[in-house]
Amino acid sequence: MRTYHECVPCFISQATEAVRFVTDDREIHDKVLRGVRRMVDRMDLSQPPIAMGRHVHRMIRRLAGDEDPYKEVKERFNRAALALYPELKERVKRSRDPLEAAVRIAIAGNIIDFGVNRNLQESDVHEAIEQAMEAPLDNGALSDFRKAMADASSILYLGDNAGEIVFDRLLVEEMPLEKVTFVVRGSPVINDATMDDARAAGLTDIVEVIDNGSDAPGTLLESCSEEFRERFETADLILSKGQGNYETVSHIPKRIFFLLKAKCPVIARDLGCDVGTMLFRRK
Amino acid sequence: MRTYHECVPCFISQATEAVRFVTDDREIHDKVLRGVRRMVDRMDLSQPPIAMGRHVHRMIRRLAGDEDPYKEVKERFNRAALALYPELKERVKRSRDPLEAAVRIAIAGNIIDFGVNRNLQESDVHEAIEQAMEAPLDNGALSDFRKAMADASSILYLGDNAGEIVFDRLLVEEMPLEKVTFVVRGSPVINDATMDDARAAGLTDIVEVIDNGSDAPGTLLESCSEEFRERFETADLILSKGQGNYETVSHIPKRIFFLLKAKCPVIARDLGCDVGTMLFRRK
Repeated sequence: MRTYHECVPCFISQATEAVRFVTDDREIHDKVLRGVRRMVDRMDLSQPPIAMGRHVHRMIRRLAGDEDPYKEVKERFNRAALALYPELKERVKRSRDPLEAAVRIAIAGNIIDFGVNRNLQESDVHEAIEQAMEAPLDNGALSDFRKAMADASSILYLGDNAGEIVFDRLLVEEMPLEKVTFVVRGSPVINDATMDDARAAGLTDIVEVIDNGSDAPGTLLESCSEEFRERFETADLILSKGQGNYETVSHIPKRIFFLLKAKCPVIARDLGCDVGTMLFRRK
Repeated sequence: MRTYHECVPCFISQATEAVRFVTDDREIHDKVLRGVRRMVDRMDLSQPPIAMGRHVHRMIRRLAGDEDPYKEVKERFNRAALALYPELKERVKRSRDPLEAAVRIAIAGNIIDFGVNRNLQESDVHEAIEQAMEAPLDNGALSDFRKAMADASSILYLGDNAGEIVFDRLLVEEMPLEKVTFVVRGSPVINDATMDDARAAGLTDIVEVIDNGSDAPGTLLESCSEEFRERFETADLILSKGQGNYETVSHIPKRIFFLLKAKCPVIARDLGCDVGTMLFRRK
């Protein structure tokens, strides 16, 4: 997905919030936001928004001198999500259609905005789960997905954020484990899941987990490792979680299913849905 | 007032909305927003936000080939406000304190967001007037203003938008007319009032009206005519209407009263009030 004019002010706002979250040092705020304004002048709108997000967050980490400023946030979200795991697992087991229940719970993980400045309230989580359980879901996509899983010999599950990946684990557990490879980012960017989070979520114990070699908050193939690109190329089926992965792989001609909540108006327009829609869709 | 980091995304959003309002030509949208991104890179944050707004709107007018893209909007708002004038005049006359009532009505004119994309709903107008009538008002500022008017020999009333200036007229009519000079922008910028609007509002029939020689949507003295700067320098009392005037004259050591609704979080913070506060304040 290309970058739209509306994305530009949104970048700057997000960068402003992020650098203020990462440090109280006003000189660093000024330096980063000066740099962001320079980037905005030079940006290539034909690239997906994530391409710019990658450079912005790289600059924040470099200028703040912190390789993983969201480390504690990620650990907290993983712990909070893990505390919910037994109850959610029980819910999946008890349901008439465990795969559908697990898809809905995985979307719930994307609905819960593990916003970096927010405390995770139990009530929010339960609300998100009930919302995901009751929201309309494309049954055609679900049955296509079932068939695609049966047909596939290799499935890549593109993960999104820390905390959320515990919810993804519940879906992974309803998939043919021997075929699934779960993908995390190559190195820290915002609160996106990396190998540490996959380990914390228990994913490494049940399926192969690989990292994509990139620090983009999505799957920007040209920034990924050669090794990952080969895996992506040869996979029969891709399950893409969240907006960051959507905007970076939606144009690629492969068998891809998208699982996300449309949180931003530009992505919602690109998907042809309303902001807030919970989506499970075949490309 | 300087420009804050939060102002930068807001500029870009406003420019995006403005250029889309002015033309449907996507090539012009792209050109303008490319130019805005270049400006954002080069901007001087020590200047008030209006300084940037001036350049953005100048570029929009130039690239869209339209010297006054908001002409019709301004005419419509003037007509709508003039239709309310008799009823509001009656209300001022009937009140126990006509000056206070007129101050409140002038603020109501600033509360009504004569947003360029909006139709003026009669219900919004009445709501704004009732809100202004009941909102807390600094009585100390009001009595200081009464005294300052009596002491002054020359008063400059810095006007804001078309439509709104009909509401200002009601306040002007409660002031010593022989001392008052009403000030409009030197040439069209957004829906800010110019000499044409002052004429339409009937202000030119009751007081001296001058223009400031500038196309900034505020009173950016360095962009004003030499003649206006002299008038500003020698005036004993300034009444400054709206945010655009506030941010450009609030640092000047003169006897200034501000009349506005704080609509933006940055200006509210600068004023030390909440967004939405209706203010009549002595500098």
